[in-house]
Amino acid sequence: MGCIFEVTASALDAGARAGNLLTMHGSVPTPAFMPVGTQGTVKSLTPEDLECAGTCVVLANTYHLYLRPGIDIIEHMGGLHRFMAWNGPILTDSGGFQVFSLAGLRRVSDEGVLFSSHIDGGDHFFTPESAIAYQERLGSDIAMVLDVCHAHDLDAAGAKKAMDLTHRWAARCLQAHQRSEQALFGIVQGGTNIEFRLESAHFLASQGFQGYAIGGLSVGEPKETTWNVLEATLPALPCDSPRYLMGVGAPDDIVRSVALGVDLFDSVLPTRVARHGAVYTTGGRLNLRNAQYERCEEPIDRECDCYTCRTFTTAYMHHLFRCEELLAYRLATIHNVRFMVRLMSGIRQAILGGRFADYQAEFLGRYKPPDEQARLEQKRKWSAARHAPGG
Amino acid sequence: MGCIFEVTASALDAGARAGNLLTMHGSVPTPAFMPVGTQGTVKSLTPEDLECAGTCVVLANTYHLYLRPGIDIIEHMGGLHRFMAWNGPILTDSGGFQVFSLAGLRRVSDEGVLFSSHIDGGDHFFTPESAIAYQERLGSDIAMVLDVCHAHDLDAAGAKKAMDLTHRWAARCLQAHQRSEQALFGIVQGGTNIEFRLESAHFLASQGFQGYAIGGLSVGEPKETTWNVLEATLPALPCDSPRYLMGVGAPDDIVRSVALGVDLFDSVLPTRVARHGAVYTTGGRLNLRNAQYERCEEPIDRECDCYTCRTFTTAYMHHLFRCEELLAYRLATIHNVRFMVRLMSGIRQAILGGRFADYQAEFLGRYKPPDEQARLEQKRKWSAARHAPGG
Repeated sequence: MGCIFEVTASALDAGARAGNLLTMHGSVPTPAFMPVGTQGTVKSLTPEDLECAGTCVVLANTYHLYLRPGIDIIEHMGGLHRFMAWNGPILTDSGGFQVFSLAGLRRVSDEGVLFSSHIDGGDHFFTPESAIAYQERLGSDIAMVLDVCHAHDLDAAGAKKAMDLTHRWAARCLQAHQRSEQALFGIVQGGTNIEFRLESAHFLASQGFQGYAIGGLSVGEPKETTWNVLEATLPALPCDSPRYLMGVGAPDDIVRSVALGVDLFDSVLPTRVARHGAVYTTGGRLNLRNAQYERCEEPIDRECDCYTCRTFTTAYMHHLFRCEELLAYRLATIHNVRFMVRLMSGIRQAILGGRFADYQAEFLGRYKPPDEQARLEQKRKWSAARHAPGG
Repeated sequence: MGCIFEVTASALDAGARAGNLLTMHGSVPTPAFMPVGTQGTVKSLTPEDLECAGTCVVLANTYHLYLRPGIDIIEHMGGLHRFMAWNGPILTDSGGFQVFSLAGLRRVSDEGVLFSSHIDGGDHFFTPESAIAYQERLGSDIAMVLDVCHAHDLDAAGAKKAMDLTHRWAARCLQAHQRSEQALFGIVQGGTNIEFRLESAHFLASQGFQGYAIGGLSVGEPKETTWNVLEATLPALPCDSPRYLMGVGAPDDIVRSVALGVDLFDSVLPTRVARHGAVYTTGGRLNLRNAQYERCEEPIDRECDCYTCRTFTTAYMHHLFRCEELLAYRLATIHNVRFMVRLMSGIRQAILGGRFADYQAEFLGRYKPPDEQARLEQKRKWSAARHAPGG
């Protein structure tokens, strides 16, 4: 039965929903954010750190684990949960996104995708069937179909072609999928074209997946486009299934997306920016490298109950980042992961209490997002750094 | 009263002693190993990690903290204990060793030492008086005198001259030292010349320090020389004071040194090699990067009770190192620090039980040290990498 999803409450004056996603490794209260454990580890954190931060579910990447240590080894070690010592739910990405963004793309055919490893350049071939088999052998709780990803500014004909292939692959994935204790989610594609997006949502819904992801957003397009596509697509998805917006992780974007009816999120953003010294507060992002924190006797956020904020001053965090001490990366990551858990929990309580619209207005009034131009520039820079595995 | 030291037991058939070193921030059962927290953090570990591993005392470096974040800032933040959130005893090195090894040495005069920062090349001047004042402002439990360090192969005249200056500086440090709650240790120098070493031990003992360190050993000289110097020097030091062998941290060297009467040790070795994938077991060092561990379902050491060994397989550790995941460095460090704590505890129990000679024979029979040639080569390489702050 893979997973069971139930919507507990919907916000009265908005599309937001609170629910529960039950998997073989536990239950995930939604809306939920999934920290990214690309290579079988959420960078710098132990499973204990994740639990202390209140994390319920993590994401891992089939592409990376296939290359290192190899599916075979993880299977030999008793599956991904045992290998990484994480007993909670795991969602595995199929590798689609990484093959099209990180690897050297060699050839896409109806059969599958030929790519070269970003590690050693070696050739590998993924098919919808093999992507499913790998995820079954990893033993994740939720598997994703193999999809065709492309740049946001691909022309309409190209976007249509990629979507049609994504649909044929989705049907093959569903056909190939055998492990009943693992859920399988479809992925809506269609670029920035709303007509395609609706077609994709309807096609996938007709196939009967256990959840639906929206892929190909937050890949460099203007934010207004993201919202337009999302707003048009979500109502076309079954309302009794979980809806997962892939790759979105900025706090303000999450609040806005929840308002449109999204249940699940993942992104490397909170953990990646932490390693660059950027930490979240309800007022926005702070950069701990900034000299203004040199003598700051306060914790990063007085409202935060994470280990970092309970234990250390911002001056100490500034010192660790300035000296590039390893401890800096973990402590900032712990803070950001805890921030995301508290954010999702606050959102959920607001929905359950029927006051999400107020929550949203208050949150967005207080949270100062980074400059839009800086955001796109950063996105571009990171996309160019193809060899850095995410997380 | 700085610190109080009491010898609890001496091994019947060897020079080993078990004792207790009482400081304002708690008691240290000896023999003890001090992990190095150069820049106010034992690299990759939190104070919680150190406590979980059973660490009682850490070392921090005045030289590094003086340069970053600066003595002024740490004093403003309430002292080093509060700054790094470590409530146990802290020993601070005076900066002598770093000034002579890490910084660009400019000029040594009777007055003090002029050096240039390894970070930005800026000029700085340390005197015996300022080195004491800095350590008093840091608020460490044990301060060290400023000493003159030199290469092990300096000629006799040079070694004598450095020792004489070390003695004059030691007397000035004692004179300048004011904080009665902080202990002050002298440092025996004299190179590889046993006559000088004895002269140095007698001179320092005559001054009445609260503890005595042996400096200038394990700096590249052959091991046999180390043992000869140590064996000759230790009996010349007061037997009711703690004896601290600076910079020695290899497990087999520690066991041998305890047999000669050493109470305290510090070294970057266990934490530094951990970050290179080398982990201790009672059989010797393993390198986790080795392909033989790819499918190893065992923990690093079945006898170990550290978080790493209780939670992860060696195959997972191998994967983390192969992928250069941040988590690798912390998990291996936790293991090695716990190994050192268990080693020192085992040594102490053996002394208290009157069976240290047997313990030593058994440990050395089982523990396979790295090849001596490889050891010296590694030492040379690390000494050459002057810009890397230790830990």
